Amino acid sequence: MVGGGAEPEGDRLLDGMFATPAVLVALDDGARLRTMLAFEVALAAAQADLGIVPRDAADMIAACASPKAFDIAAIAQAAGRAGNIAIPFVAAFTAIVARRDGAAARYVHWGATSQDVIDTATVLQLRAAVSALRIDLLRLETALARIVADHAATVLPGRTWLQHAVPTTLGLKAAGWLTAVAAARRAVDDAAARAASLQFGGAAGTLASLTGQGLDVARRVAARLDLRLPPLPWHTLRGELAACGGALGVLCGALGKLARDLSLMMQTEIVELLPPGGKGQGGSSTMPHKRNPVGCAIALSVATQAPGLVATLLSAMVQEHERGLGGWHAEWQTLPALLRLAAASAARMAETVEGTEIRPGAMRADLGRTHGLMMAEAVSMDLARSIGKEDAHHVLEEASRTALAEGRPLEQVLKQDRRVTVALSADEIGRLMDPAHYLGNARDFCERALQAWRGGE
Amino acid sequence: MVGGGAEPEGDRLLDGMFATPAVLVALDDGARLRTMLAFEVALAAAQADLGIVPRDAADMIAACASPKAFDIAAIAQAAGRAGNIAIPFVAAFTAIVARRDGAAARYVHWGATSQDVIDTATVLQLRAAVSALRIDLLRLETALARIVADHAATVLPGRTWLQHAVPTTLGLKAAGWLTAVAAARRAVDDAAARAASLQFGGAAGTLASLTGQGLDVARRVAARLDLRLPPLPWHTLRGELAACGGALGVLCGALGKLARDLSLMMQTEIVELLPPGGKGQGGSSTMPHKRNPVGCAIALSVATQAPGLVATLLSAMVQEHERGLGGWHAEWQTLPALLRLAAASAARMAETVEGTEIRPGAMRADLGRTHGLMMAEAVSMDLARSIGKEDAHHVLEEASRTALAEGRPLEQVLKQDRRVTVALSADEIGRLMDPAHYLGNARDFCERALQAWRGGE
Amino acid sequence: MVGGGAEPEGDRLLDGMFATPAVLVALDDGARLRTMLAFEVALAAAQADLGIVPRDAADMIAACASPKAFDIAAIAQAAGRAGNIAIPFVAAFTAIVARRDGAAARYVHWGATSQDVIDTATVLQLRAAVSALRIDLLRLETALARIVADHAATVLPGRTWLQHAVPTTLGLKAAGWLTAVAAARRAVDDAAARAASLQFGGAAGTLASLTGQGLDVARRVAARLDLRLPPLPWHTLRGELAACGGALGVLCGALGKLARDLSLMMQTEIVELLPPGGKGQGGSSTMPHKRNPVGCAIALSVATQAPGLVATLLSAMVQEHERGLGGWHAEWQTLPALLRLAAASAARMAETVEGTEIRPGAMRADLGRTHGLMMAEAVSMDLARSIGKEDAHHVLEEASRTALAEGRPLEQVLKQDRRVTVALSADEIGRLMDPAHYLGNARDFCERALQAWRGGE
Amino acid sequence: MVGGGAEPEGDRLLDGMFATPAVLVALDDGARLRTMLAFEVALAAAQADLGIVPRDAADMIAACASPKAFDIAAIAQAAGRAGNIAIPFVAAFTAIVARRDGAAARYVHWGATSQDVIDTATVLQLRAAVSALRIDLLRLETALARIVADHAATVLPGRTWLQHAVPTTLGLKAAGWLTAVAAARRAVDDAAARAASLQFGGAAGTLASLTGQGLDVARRVAARLDLRLPPLPWHTLRGELAACGGALGVLCGALGKLARDLSLMMQTEIVELLPPGGKGQGGSSTMPHKRNPVGCAIALSVATQAPGLVATLLSAMVQEHERGLGGWHAEWQTLPALLRLAAASAARMAETVEGTEIRPGAMRADLGRTHGLMMAEAVSMDLARSIGKEDAHHVLEEASRTALAEGRPLEQVLKQDRRVTVALSADEIGRLMDPAHYLGNARDFCERALQAWRGGE
Repeated sequence: MVGGGAEPEGDRLLDGMFATPAVLVALDDGARLRTMLAFEVALAAAQADLGIVPRDAADMIAACASPKAFDIAAIAQAAGRAGNIAIPFVAAFTAIVARRDGAAARYVHWGATSQDVIDTATVLQLRAAVSALRIDLLRLETALARIVADHAATVLPGRTWLQHAVPTTLGLKAAGWLTAVAAARRAVDDAAARAASLQFGGAAGTLASLTGQGLDVARRVAARLDLRLPPLPWHTLRGELAACGGALGVLCGALGKLARDLSLMMQTEIVELLPPGGKGQGGSSTMPHKRNPVGCAIALSVATQAPGLVATLLSAMVQEHERGLGGWHAEWQTLPALLRLAAASAARMAETVEGTEIRPGAMRADLGRTHGLMMAEAVSMDLARSIGKEDAHHVLEEASRTALAEGRPLEQVLKQDRRVTVALSADEIGRLMDPAHYLGNARDFCERALQAWRGGE
Repeated sequence: MVGGGAEPEGDRLLDGMFATPAVLVALDDGARLRTMLAFEVALAAAQADLGIVPRDAADMIAACASPKAFDIAAIAQAAGRAGNIAIPFVAAFTAIVARRDGAAARYVHWGATSQDVIDTATVLQLRAAVSALRIDLLRLETALARIVADHAATVLPGRTWLQHAVPTTLGLKAAGWLTAVAAARRAVDDAAARAASLQFGGAAGTLASLTGQGLDVARRVAARLDLRLPPLPWHTLRGELAACGGALGVLCGALGKLARDLSLMMQTEIVELLPPGGKGQGGSSTMPHKRNPVGCAIALSVATQAPGLVATLLSAMVQEHERGLGGWHAEWQTLPALLRLAAASAARMAETVEGTEIRPGAMRADLGRTHGLMMAEAVSMDLARSIGKEDAHHVLEEASRTALAEGRPLEQVLKQDRRVTVALSADEIGRLMDPAHYLGNARDFCERALQAWRGGE
Repeated sequence: MVGGGAEPEGDRLLDGMFATPAVLVALDDGARLRTMLAFEVALAAAQADLGIVPRDAADMIAACASPKAFDIAAIAQAAGRAGNIAIPFVAAFTAIVARRDGAAARYVHWGATSQDVIDTATVLQLRAAVSALRIDLLRLETALARIVADHAATVLPGRTWLQHAVPTTLGLKAAGWLTAVAAARRAVDDAAARAASLQFGGAAGTLASLTGQGLDVARRVAARLDLRLPPLPWHTLRGELAACGGALGVLCGALGKLARDLSLMMQTEIVELLPPGGKGQGGSSTMPHKRNPVGCAIALSVATQAPGLVATLLSAMVQEHERGLGGWHAEWQTLPALLRLAAASAARMAETVEGTEIRPGAMRADLGRTHGLMMAEAVSMDLARSIGKEDAHHVLEEASRTALAEGRPLEQVLKQDRRVTVALSADEIGRLMDPAHYLGNARDFCERALQAWRGGE
Repeated sequence: MVGGGAEPEGDRLLDGMFATPAVLVALDDGARLRTMLAFEVALAAAQADLGIVPRDAADMIAACASPKAFDIAAIAQAAGRAGNIAIPFVAAFTAIVARRDGAAARYVHWGATSQDVIDTATVLQLRAAVSALRIDLLRLETALARIVADHAATVLPGRTWLQHAVPTTLGLKAAGWLTAVAAARRAVDDAAARAASLQFGGAAGTLASLTGQGLDVARRVAARLDLRLPPLPWHTLRGELAACGGALGVLCGALGKLARDLSLMMQTEIVELLPPGGKGQGGSSTMPHKRNPVGCAIALSVATQAPGLVATLLSAMVQEHERGLGGWHAEWQTLPALLRLAAASAARMAETVEGTEIRPGAMRADLGRTHGLMMAEAVSMDLARSIGKEDAHHVLEEASRTALAEGRPLEQVLKQDRRVTVALSADEIGRLMDPAHYLGNARDFCERALQAWRGGE
């Protein structure tokens, strides 16, 4: 279908935002060809081991296996008619081999079907892309772990419903981000490892064309490609790939949550954090003073895009009989898109967390914004011991309203409320109003999170 | 972010399946640059009309506006840091103009913000892509209308739950496909027309930088680009774009329904239709006799992918304040992806319907597969006039079971059932068993559908 | 399938959050039965008009048509085996009629199929639910229009990327919200009107069982139910329903955008708006002082849930032949869920906007948070007239950095910068720093938005 | 919000199709109250153990913990204002306890926040629902394993692109279904086990209100509820729940694939399988002879609905700070909906596979439909050994075309083709044309699949 008047000029303008160089290299056209060739080479070699294919032919097939030899536009165009890229790819590769050795060319793709080479190439690319992704995730986790360790005592407002609740620490926030990202990274790793299994079933999954030697060939091909040998070909059993999608979706969500929190803390009115600066980074074309949280925007955008792509992979699972009609095809752009986005998000959040400027002073200042109302729970819980939870809650609600209405510090109001002062001394009230004294198990949670992370749990 | 060792080699291998040449040209990097330049040129010209920018500067800006002058990789990389492609694009364009006329360069992008140029370019590309899409849809509709007209009396089994129900006609089936596709095409047209409105609001939507002349500039830019002038800038009001997404989603669903039906009728066991043949079309790499419904697979794959992309556009609507953080970014790849897929689906279904081989003989043969059970309703409805609906239903259920169990034609069983013969003569039973006599208003519905289609309703 | 030991106790605990009383009444089990009965009554009456059914029978059918007569649990259980609720519903209704008049019972559901009654009932419920929804949307729009009118000059920071950009007005923000919600409401209305068409095709869409009178019956049934008569039955043509889903999705997105903005403005650190207070409204169980933006949370939650439901409706469009296998079934819970959520969101946003406390003082205070940096663009644009856009941009970037680093007002820094003072007097700089003088066409946009809204555009 | 004129009548009509009795009991309003009470009782008991709460109070709290005591409509209505059901639930429970013991009532929900009780209740319900689901899955797997064992040699056409490809066996098809369902079931189990962790963090995740004893309390509450103690509270870390969603989505997809295959094999034109019959099962209201694959329709419908719900759970992960605004709320209806659907699908597929009638004769007959074309690959592969793959492919393509065009068996055509007969004798050709001799490793794959299943791999 490609052709006609104007030549399409490609689609790379957005790659700087929604991919990383490493993930592009794992997933681009070159990688597709490379991994498809890897399958064909391993297949021929395995068959040579078993005497199905002459060793010379297998060697020649290996010798010819260079992505450079292929005309990508021609394969793309032919794939439009054939329904997949393997058919023109195999034809082209056979022709390439035949130019050097007609006899060897007969053995290209022997006993295999289009789906064998496409699916095996897919899991090889998946593995490479997840490796690239992992590097950025570990960078990010390391940066987060550092914040947990360094800021376990850095107090700032805990916020629920976007309202100040009770105090928390930056360390505890970071412990949460770390725990979520690390869990998601491990789940992606596990899912990718499970998905890394050879596809090899021939025309309809029986390997009939190899007259009984199919399983032996499969075992050897899997070993050569360092892939698992599944119990049976998985042509229309797409659960492992879809599970990778799900795991990547959870990862993108965890990164999105981190990005949302960071960007909220970077708001002009809050600036507890400042986005990384530097040349070209988040500048505005019209507002010279701005420092935009670009990395957070990317990660949030990815968290917006990933769920729909995961849904596609799940919908695509309903594949007919021994080869699907549309379902399989729906994966081909979707899984790489998801991998590119996840990689972009991980890289940008690593960069953002490493480069963000932490401003404990602003955090401290924020604690004071509600004139002590944030400490109402602390007083309420303490007071409840004397007068019961409900009454205490009620007293504090009233006092808070008074403080708000009259613009006075809650501490002052409480010190003048008889219902409070009969139970608590002025000193006790003062201590209860100090955020740093109301952090509960925050430090324990930080330690537990670091320990779990280090333990790879 | 792009850079480092290996150079990504692009991502074009799947374009032959999941795009059309025309839609690629409307949406590729060249189109992005071209439409962004169109905005900048119209802006400068409009400002020259109003004396805001020197006419010479506007002319020079127009003279420099060639996509060829841009380094796509450099913009992509800088966009990764800037957070959108407009910032490096404007910088690059300014430099390009400056190389020829430093004074003119000062007026590039005057008073506009990144989102103005990106969004306006987006709706220009959307319009071009929908135009490309429309051509294939009209081809498809014409081919379907021909089937409605030609096959209004071609009888075949109506099927519900994938079971034979009562007879219908190929014309009526095609009338349904036509009605659905045409309605969806009109809805896409309407949505694209509504979305074709200028984005121009400056830094935060007030056009403050144009000191009161903003609305006049906007009016002129809109006229020059043949776009609607909206009541106010729509920076974070994404409903019209999301509605385009929804309409495209419905279109992809309508095409998917067509593809599902065709592919079911093309099954080896049914072959009421045969997929278009010809060189490279749907051949199998291992099964020389197969003729695969490649077009249907593409369309079904698109129907699987579109819903998730539409969901993304809807999720992306929740954009913060005057410029969103992630939501806007989530549209940039998603809307073009949806347009590419819709175009591919439309083109492939046009090709498929035009090229499919219709086999009325096979349809007739299929009518006989149930030994007349399919006509049970006809008899039941007629019988009900004498003995009531429930009793008739019951009699036919029993007779059908007998026919099935004993492998005899239903007609024979009925003619030997006293409960039937007291009400119906053998001749009457015979006539009731003829599918061609049990088509109700099928022909009327065909005519109504054609009429509605021709009337553009 | 329902039955066994413990009886399920229903699922109503969340209805107070995710529905409105009016929408529940339009969509609950009672409404399902009521609208299904309305179809059966209209069908019998239309058939009596044409002499197909005795008038007495039609009258008796009408007389028996009370939802109260049905055993909901029994129908639910039987539907599990039958595959839809129409089969047991028709059986039960026939039995109900038969208890009073055996002869009339024969004519219940005459010539119709399950899908006819279910789909027609669906569009009747859809119409009722959209009517309920519309009331809350108009309330919301009226409240927003009031803010546009009242606050066209209430200045606050425009925010992009969650950073202060340049000033805007509350009126302009509200004009955007109003425009988006009103457009979405009109689109829902249009889509629901288009979808309000009779479903009546009999077993496979030909109305064969009515021996030629089908279209006449259909015309009369449609008229009695005030529904459109479509060109042909739409059993597996689900585009109009899916389009309603799309329109509802856009509406939920528009309401979510409003909720996001409001909740950001309600943050403890910003409080430009205060959520509605009052008994039980957004109180926290542990933090007595909090006033949570409950309505916004509901609307944001709806905006999160709607896209997936829309995607389901789009995926469900691929329905096989004359009756789908699973696709149709996938709509039954999804469309009502979407309607309930949209209604809840609309009602809660109406309530929230009506009850929110607007705090112009806080807005004014927020304008000062960046020590004038927000006005950098204003100065830059003005300065650009003398020294060119790029140089001006550069000067302001430097001055902004200085102001930030030294904690000094930008105005002061600028007044000491020779590159500025050669072009601008101190007075001019002062005037350029006043947010109220840098609102561009904000007021025009407010007026245009109100005009468009009143004009129903 | 519930209230006003007409009372909503509930929403149970579809429960017979889209739920099972067991899963309803695990997830209905009664279960919500029961599991919330379980948290409160465990909390009080744990606090009594540590001397934080008087033992008598804890006992009284336990004694009052009956779901029957709650007014569901009142809680639903109050939740509409409060923003969650926990606030009115705790208020109601406190009042219930207070009616018997005012002192004990003070200790209800001590130190906990709304999210603690809601989330903990959610994971308890999730565990119960997954247990219910597991029973039906194991039933299904057992039925599938029986088919693998019994039908390892039952030959039928392998089908790719809905076209006959090469022969396969019913056992191998079932081995694929079994492998996919079992893998998905194990993944759901794993995800549910990981998600089964206590939520307990108090107002902002620090447990500050328990003044240092929080972790000890948490440890004891977790033990009492048999839940994991996570490293830190997971209020806005939703990855484990979202991962459950992903696993359920994969399960629904695997069940949908099974349902798609079965329903295709049940087509009137194929009837290799017959749906379970029996009273009320899949009968048609108008076509007395039909036996509809109702279970398959349910499972396909679930596979259509699940992806959107999974996408919602992923989108909902982006939750703000210490308590989300909308994201959390978006889970409350979505996760139960997904569990109900998955349970319905599993139960119906178990029932369907157990009850389906397998018709090996029809399968054999289907093998002959292409006059031997299906065996072209077998001949081609064999022939390739003599004349090379490409030539062999070409010869078979030609012969297949001839056979098709002339309506002759391929065997006959081949026996008259010199290019074939020089390499193969008539007997050899005959043997190559026997489907039962072209099954490759099908039996091995069946054994491997059974072994893997039994090994719990």
